[in-house]
Amino acid sequence: MNQHAILHIPDSRYCFACGKKELILRLRMAKEDEEAEVFLIYACKYDFAIKRKKEKMKICYSDKLYHYYEIRLRLKDVRLAYLFQIEEKGKSYFYSEDGITNTYNFEEGFYNFFQMPYINTNDIMEVVEWMRSAVFYQIFVDRFYQGDCEKDTAYITMQWGDIPTPKSFAGGDIKGIIKKLDYIKDLGVNAIYLTPIFESISNHKYDISDYKKVDPQFGTLEDVKELVAKAHEKGIRIVLDAVFNHCSMKMEEFQDVLKNGKESLYYHWFIIDGAYPDPEKMNYECFAACNYMPKLNTADQGVQDFLIGIARYWIREADIDGWRLDVSDEVSHDFWRRFRREVKAEKKDCVIIGENWHDAYPYLMGDQYDSIMNYSFTKACLDYFARENFNASQMAEKLSSNLMRNTEPVNFMMLNLIDSHDTHRFFSEVSKDKNKLLCALALEIIFPGAPCIYYGTEICMEGGYDPDSRRCFDWKEENWDKEVMGTVKGLTALRAEPVLQYGEVRITEADDMLLVERSWQKQKIKLYINLSKKDKQVSLAKDQKVMCSHLYDRELKNHGFLIVMGKEA
Amino acid sequence: MNQHAILHIPDSRYCFACGKKELILRLRMAKEDEEAEVFLIYACKYDFAIKRKKEKMKICYSDKLYHYYEIRLRLKDVRLAYLFQIEEKGKSYFYSEDGITNTYNFEEGFYNFFQMPYINTNDIMEVVEWMRSAVFYQIFVDRFYQGDCEKDTAYITMQWGDIPTPKSFAGGDIKGIIKKLDYIKDLGVNAIYLTPIFESISNHKYDISDYKKVDPQFGTLEDVKELVAKAHEKGIRIVLDAVFNHCSMKMEEFQDVLKNGKESLYYHWFIIDGAYPDPEKMNYECFAACNYMPKLNTADQGVQDFLIGIARYWIREADIDGWRLDVSDEVSHDFWRRFRREVKAEKKDCVIIGENWHDAYPYLMGDQYDSIMNYSFTKACLDYFARENFNASQMAEKLSSNLMRNTEPVNFMMLNLIDSHDTHRFFSEVSKDKNKLLCALALEIIFPGAPCIYYGTEICMEGGYDPDSRRCFDWKEENWDKEVMGTVKGLTALRAEPVLQYGEVRITEADDMLLVERSWQKQKIKLYINLSKKDKQVSLAKDQKVMCSHLYDRELKNHGFLIVMGKEA
Repeated sequence: MNQHAILHIPDSRYCFACGKKELILRLRMAKEDEEAEVFLIYACKYDFAIKRKKEKMKICYSDKLYHYYEIRLRLKDVRLAYLFQIEEKGKSYFYSEDGITNTYNFEEGFYNFFQMPYINTNDIMEVVEWMRSAVFYQIFVDRFYQGDCEKDTAYITMQWGDIPTPKSFAGGDIKGIIKKLDYIKDLGVNAIYLTPIFESISNHKYDISDYKKVDPQFGTLEDVKELVAKAHEKGIRIVLDAVFNHCSMKMEEFQDVLKNGKESLYYHWFIIDGAYPDPEKMNYECFAACNYMPKLNTADQGVQDFLIGIARYWIREADIDGWRLDVSDEVSHDFWRRFRREVKAEKKDCVIIGENWHDAYPYLMGDQYDSIMNYSFTKACLDYFARENFNASQMAEKLSSNLMRNTEPVNFMMLNLIDSHDTHRFFSEVSKDKNKLLCALALEIIFPGAPCIYYGTEICMEGGYDPDSRRCFDWKEENWDKEVMGTVKGLTALRAEPVLQYGEVRITEADDMLLVERSWQKQKIKLYINLSKKDKQVSLAKDQKVMCSHLYDRELKNHGFLIVMGKEA
Repeated sequence: MNQHAILHIPDSRYCFACGKKELILRLRMAKEDEEAEVFLIYACKYDFAIKRKKEKMKICYSDKLYHYYEIRLRLKDVRLAYLFQIEEKGKSYFYSEDGITNTYNFEEGFYNFFQMPYINTNDIMEVVEWMRSAVFYQIFVDRFYQGDCEKDTAYITMQWGDIPTPKSFAGGDIKGIIKKLDYIKDLGVNAIYLTPIFESISNHKYDISDYKKVDPQFGTLEDVKELVAKAHEKGIRIVLDAVFNHCSMKMEEFQDVLKNGKESLYYHWFIIDGAYPDPEKMNYECFAACNYMPKLNTADQGVQDFLIGIARYWIREADIDGWRLDVSDEVSHDFWRRFRREVKAEKKDCVIIGENWHDAYPYLMGDQYDSIMNYSFTKACLDYFARENFNASQMAEKLSSNLMRNTEPVNFMMLNLIDSHDTHRFFSEVSKDKNKLLCALALEIIFPGAPCIYYGTEICMEGGYDPDSRRCFDWKEENWDKEVMGTVKGLTALRAEPVLQYGEVRITEADDMLLVERSWQKQKIKLYINLSKKDKQVSLAKDQKVMCSHLYDRELKNHGFLIVMGKEA
């Protein structure tokens, strides 16, 4: 047995509450030891020495090196003490805080058993309920649709449809989104994430000079209120972009520091090496190496008050439903803790989605965000669909590994995406293969979490890296691929199924296909994706019904997918 | 290479800041792979694709199964991206968020490098400076000394010196401690931790009925103020016991709920199954199975406000220096986060010490406590000194493993103890072997963190489990072992050495002895403990000076210790 491979961490993604009296425990073991039998031994911690239960654990996920055993406990007394017993080749081992041992002294377990000492309700990560069925649509505002024909258009520098440069302005605005709400709703979308809309001199508006003012290019506070109100009427939520890591050097507080240096009330809002910030010398902390985007010091109480004020203002004024947090991994944990407290106090089901490209577990323990943009999912899709670096088995391992990064409640809120304004367009990454695009979208729909469709994916928009992935939406319907759009709508409709909202997930390889299964209360949904370069027989059981498919007719052709639903076997 | 054994977790005890521009990284590998060379490859995350540094990592700690490689970085730009390179038998491996790979695509590192995105100053765990040199003395108040001869002594049920029962009252009080401050100071102690002193019907007072009132058996608010003031004059800090998991059923708020049930303003202060709490039916949550100690619901805002008010009150009124948190692992993380914010706002260097018997990392990440009572250290001492389950090598492994549970700043604040009111007396555990007792105390002094001496250890007090470990202090000097007390004073004096306050630590086995080394700025202190059953030659280098010893005279006898200091080789 590979003892070194065995891993469990109490009060972590390896042991967490998912309800007042319910928790999930995970144990990691080397794949090579799959013949071993794994048991959980547990009790109320105060009774541990005298009476304990023993339950067998099952392998639920597997990645490249490890199997993950999981068990769900529903307890009367949530003061849980536990350890693992592993039986292999007639030998028995115990795994406790003291590691692997051949014997275990239950009398002195209070020194070294694992424990979940108590489930306090205020420590439970609650799933924002509407996220369970959310289908997101990300809009880069300047490029979606110009709805305001009366505004001053002098700032517009490109013809709608031309290839954008980093500095192009195309004219898209909030009124444009309002006018296209029916189009969006018809896609099956029920949540929109907008890139920033506040005052800024750039087209992307990630350098904000006034956080309480809608940029005049995009509209007014009234427009935003109208957008949210009309979206809500249609059952669509609105999430805005919180650019709190840095601001524009044009923001008046930074201008004041430029002028008054240490005498400024706002000197400590920034992190400056010297009496004055000097953009030439770059003697202050910035985003990346951009001197025009000074970093905000979220360790400063004044900055915290200011940013929290903004976060609450837009919820209160415009009734928005969530914040996406730009460059959130560079902002302090301490700030995000306060942010969560105050945002949730303003609106309990306001969702908080970080932009963390990496394992974000330290931000997802219940005290900071609800979820992140799942770029690790994006990367897996690139490796599987676009680059074919992965076969189905490797893809199953990678996706399982992605799920093991977080707790179940977080996985249900993850924002899964295949592209965004910060990547190449996925359709270009798959060399404009519509079949592969649809397979990837099918995966996004069935995978735990909320799928996020980057505007124009449904009409097969192309584009390389920024600014090319930010082209203008082509509103000429005659250019649209109706089959792709129809399949997208078929897929988004599936999010209404409870099994996708609550169901457990297993990801495996089946006959060289990727198989994703979700199950809940005797319902099971299965997604097959065939990238095997061969056509595959997939025969349906009597009670199974095809929910959505592409390139399937008794056999599943290469680059096709099939989604079936039925009772659990 | 045992790939399965390799472990690193970003933004955790495996990668943490210990200053604005300074951090420590750790990598765990199987011991069997010690021939491998381990490198850290790192860069500012925005330059990662173009320029990177490479530094070799060294083995700093070893436990039973693993070696822990560690490196300390001092950076100009703290936006750190990194991965590990492992070279073994002519092969090179990379270890990133994607696990072990034979190649690594640095161009796309932004998807899977490890990172410390930024060190925000408000996320740094700061060491409470006075903890670096603290020597604690734990006092069980009823049994230490009766200083008030004028109080109503009707409650006293035992003769001073009799063996206590669970319900005995001996008469010890706050005035008694004040009178013995010179004795305590003379021991080399500079911090006192008192078991609870607030109104309660028990002798231990862990069931509190009024958190703002000193129990009349122990004294008054004025006595506590006088104790703190006089202690401070002598350079001694005072830490009180916060029993916030539960209260006494006699507390007026619980009495109100008993009377008024759901109509009571305090109904939600407790966790009750039904309209009224019923002590007979135990239909409410309690500490352990004690119906007279109802659990406080720290998810309730009213309870939070109440307890935070108490925490701040005693700091403000009596100027105490810290809180020890009873049954802290059963109280919510959310509550402890607020507790930290408010306590530190009241007094920045107020220390927060949890009573967590297990790995408490989730509470020690910088947002909750500063440290815990290190019962894992206690257990190791029992296994090594008392039960001889461990040889020196196994003890070194166990202590190293203990250190790897937490970050360096936390380790500097750990409250290390060999016994307490909740264990057997260590002197009894080692079958009254004074040599072993002194060796264990020497280890407590040299090990990173603050040693905590349970009252009477210095006079070799005996006792089994509660209530026997809570006997009356024997003030008859003629019964004291002067040699033991002298050695204790020699040991406590060492805490003034900067090398013990700031120094790194290495724990190994040397010639069957336990060797603990601390080093800082060219100073090195070494502790040898000989439990090998043989006398050992320990020859000193020219510059080495004996700082304290027991059973040493050129050779170190069995059950002896030797502490030497000198320049680093």
